[in-house]
Amino acid sequence: MRIAILGGDGYCGWATALHLSNRGHEIAIIDNFLRRQWDFELGVQTLTPIRPLPERLAVWQQLTGRVIEPFIGDVTDYDFLASMISEFRPEAIVHFAEQRSAPYSMIDRKHAVSTQVNNVVGTLNLLFAIRELAPDCHIVKLGTMGEYGTPNIDIEEGFITIEHNGRKDTLPFPKQPGSFYHLSKVHDSHNITFACKIWGLRATDLNQGVVYGTLTDEVDMDEALINRFDYDEVFGTVLNRFCAQAAIGLPLSVYGKGGQTRGFLDIRDTVRCIELVCINPASRGEFRVFNQFTEQFSVLELAKLVQMISREMGVHVEIDHLPDPRVEAETHYYNAKHSRLADLGLEPHLLSDALVNSLINVALRYRDRIDPAMFAPQVNWRAGRNRRRTTSMLGRDLALAKEPLSSSIS
Amino acid sequence: MRIAILGGDGYCGWATALHLSNRGHEIAIIDNFLRRQWDFELGVQTLTPIRPLPERLAVWQQLTGRVIEPFIGDVTDYDFLASMISEFRPEAIVHFAEQRSAPYSMIDRKHAVSTQVNNVVGTLNLLFAIRELAPDCHIVKLGTMGEYGTPNIDIEEGFITIEHNGRKDTLPFPKQPGSFYHLSKVHDSHNITFACKIWGLRATDLNQGVVYGTLTDEVDMDEALINRFDYDEVFGTVLNRFCAQAAIGLPLSVYGKGGQTRGFLDIRDTVRCIELVCINPASRGEFRVFNQFTEQFSVLELAKLVQMISREMGVHVEIDHLPDPRVEAETHYYNAKHSRLADLGLEPHLLSDALVNSLINVALRYRDRIDPAMFAPQVNWRAGRNRRRTTSMLGRDLALAKEPLSSSIS
Repeated sequence: MRIAILGGDGYCGWATALHLSNRGHEIAIIDNFLRRQWDFELGVQTLTPIRPLPERLAVWQQLTGRVIEPFIGDVTDYDFLASMISEFRPEAIVHFAEQRSAPYSMIDRKHAVSTQVNNVVGTLNLLFAIRELAPDCHIVKLGTMGEYGTPNIDIEEGFITIEHNGRKDTLPFPKQPGSFYHLSKVHDSHNITFACKIWGLRATDLNQGVVYGTLTDEVDMDEALINRFDYDEVFGTVLNRFCAQAAIGLPLSVYGKGGQTRGFLDIRDTVRCIELVCINPASRGEFRVFNQFTEQFSVLELAKLVQMISREMGVHVEIDHLPDPRVEAETHYYNAKHSRLADLGLEPHLLSDALVNSLINVALRYRDRIDPAMFAPQVNWRAGRNRRRTTSMLGRDLALAKEPLSSSIS
Repeated sequence: MRIAILGGDGYCGWATALHLSNRGHEIAIIDNFLRRQWDFELGVQTLTPIRPLPERLAVWQQLTGRVIEPFIGDVTDYDFLASMISEFRPEAIVHFAEQRSAPYSMIDRKHAVSTQVNNVVGTLNLLFAIRELAPDCHIVKLGTMGEYGTPNIDIEEGFITIEHNGRKDTLPFPKQPGSFYHLSKVHDSHNITFACKIWGLRATDLNQGVVYGTLTDEVDMDEALINRFDYDEVFGTVLNRFCAQAAIGLPLSVYGKGGQTRGFLDIRDTVRCIELVCINPASRGEFRVFNQFTEQFSVLELAKLVQMISREMGVHVEIDHLPDPRVEAETHYYNAKHSRLADLGLEPHLLSDALVNSLINVALRYRDRIDPAMFAPQVNWRAGRNRRRTTSMLGRDLALAKEPLSSSIS
């Protein structure tokens, strides 16, 4: 299939692009490197030294003979997006090209506004471009499990049948998103639902859980193909962060009680899910929602797992309970359905001790790149970003912070 | 109370500002005249000759001795909005300052994007400005009954208790908005819910029905205070449109079967509802939703009512069933709750023959300003705007269209 990956230079996008290319699909990567720019803005960097996209693509071609076509531009620029579609003529477009960090969206008003405008306008442009230029093209949109929040009932996949006062209807599952970022995804979902209904577009909304891991078969082929591994408080996902903390012997930072339970999945399952969805498209006019995760864990369970594996590796790390910077339930009911991707054939990579071990080893390999100042939560849901740390101070903070640390994992 | 009316130069905003001023509140009007600009863009005008805001305010002051303070600017400009709040220090802010036409939002991509960006960013700015500058200020936000769509179950006021797999929770009522405009209001509702939760703001979301009528006690005091009366296909609401059609003897244009049922209310109830909500504010951290309408009608019922009243006035008008330009159910179940404003003391002005008679008389009074070309639906939900009519042709169309008409109501 001809598949365009919007945001193909990012964490999930890059792994997906390589996987689909390796599986024989014709792939285009669309990116404007905004994700790399946010690193500059925040003064953070991925643990793993990712290469510039042209180098990545050249190495991929040398190794596999497969060509991935880059289109450099912004999906909020309609003319650019339209010209890509006209030229590449995709049968499916996988849309990862959004600001995807909850803390980033909570920094202040400008970050909230830019997150929502970027995500909503990019998706609106995509809907109109497909209507205009490729009405048969399947939209594969990355949503998030965070759209649902933590209701006190089972979470279904997108829709729920409600009986009320003697009548019944199947309606969109009520959403209770927990950040301006998560809200932007809810806005997108509503906009896409509507476009499928009125224009007969076909779309699959993947409410993805928290992704962990960095290696896929393809990324593992060469160091130049290495994927992001974000561990900072803004873009780092929780398991990656714990493994990076363990690698330098820092306490694992659990927000509040740690009873926050979420769906999780291995990045190897992300890429597999995307292919399953592409080769099994929604029908014309259909808006499907799949919950894309494989297991539920609480944050504290993950911390304890990382602590245990670290101990097996000869290192004792503490678990710190920090005041929760977010506004969220620290203990709650959580039971989210996730059978539709399994029905399509997903065989999950469940979280194993070996995987955690390998993640800690990745972190150890690049431990010199870890800046311990990047772990501390500076973005507070109630107050925005702590102004004490500013970009201009980062260099000094970093030097000061690194000095007293002695490494405890070798 | 000190009450700021965002969008106070518009249809509902103007009537509300005068009513609240007349009731003794200190009022500021915030407006950037975007609504007047859209008339220029579309080549349409209100049936009633509204005056410039400075003239309106001067006449109001002459008549009543009451001063309404104008702040001219755009709520998507944060600095402007913040300076207004710092200067005027409102206890409540009534937010009408949004693009509020479904057809306008469906013209094309640019209109969809501008509607959503304008509405979402304006509301985000308001939330942040209140958090920063006036955390106790009550947000009175105009939503729309159209957020709910037409589910096959009773529509509750904002929230619904769902029993599912043996568990129970009260969750936001699922939304099925039917245009990019209605979607923008759903986005707003989610954003406001979140801000109330994390920052302890207080807000009331008024899911308003279709408003009809043009006169309130205050507007009626002087012709210079006259309110908008939009009858064109883009900004006109259905009952106003039918009355304008009747006034020049044109068939009443019903879209499809006309079984589309919606909540309606008299503009005299809009202004009363707003005062009731302002003087009975939400608590800190509370996000309330009231359904603001007084009666349900189908479009065909309203057409038949206007036809009957016209006949009593000596004129026979036909009812035309046009192909529905929208994507919507033409017949459906509809039962929406609306008791919370009545609980606060609203005594509704139900739709009477006398009111329809007076509306037709308003239309007759200004019949020379009616452009019959403005009735025909040019915006199609599936295809966007019909390009045959362009602004540059309007003058000629208008002249051609007016010629053969002979008036049948005197």
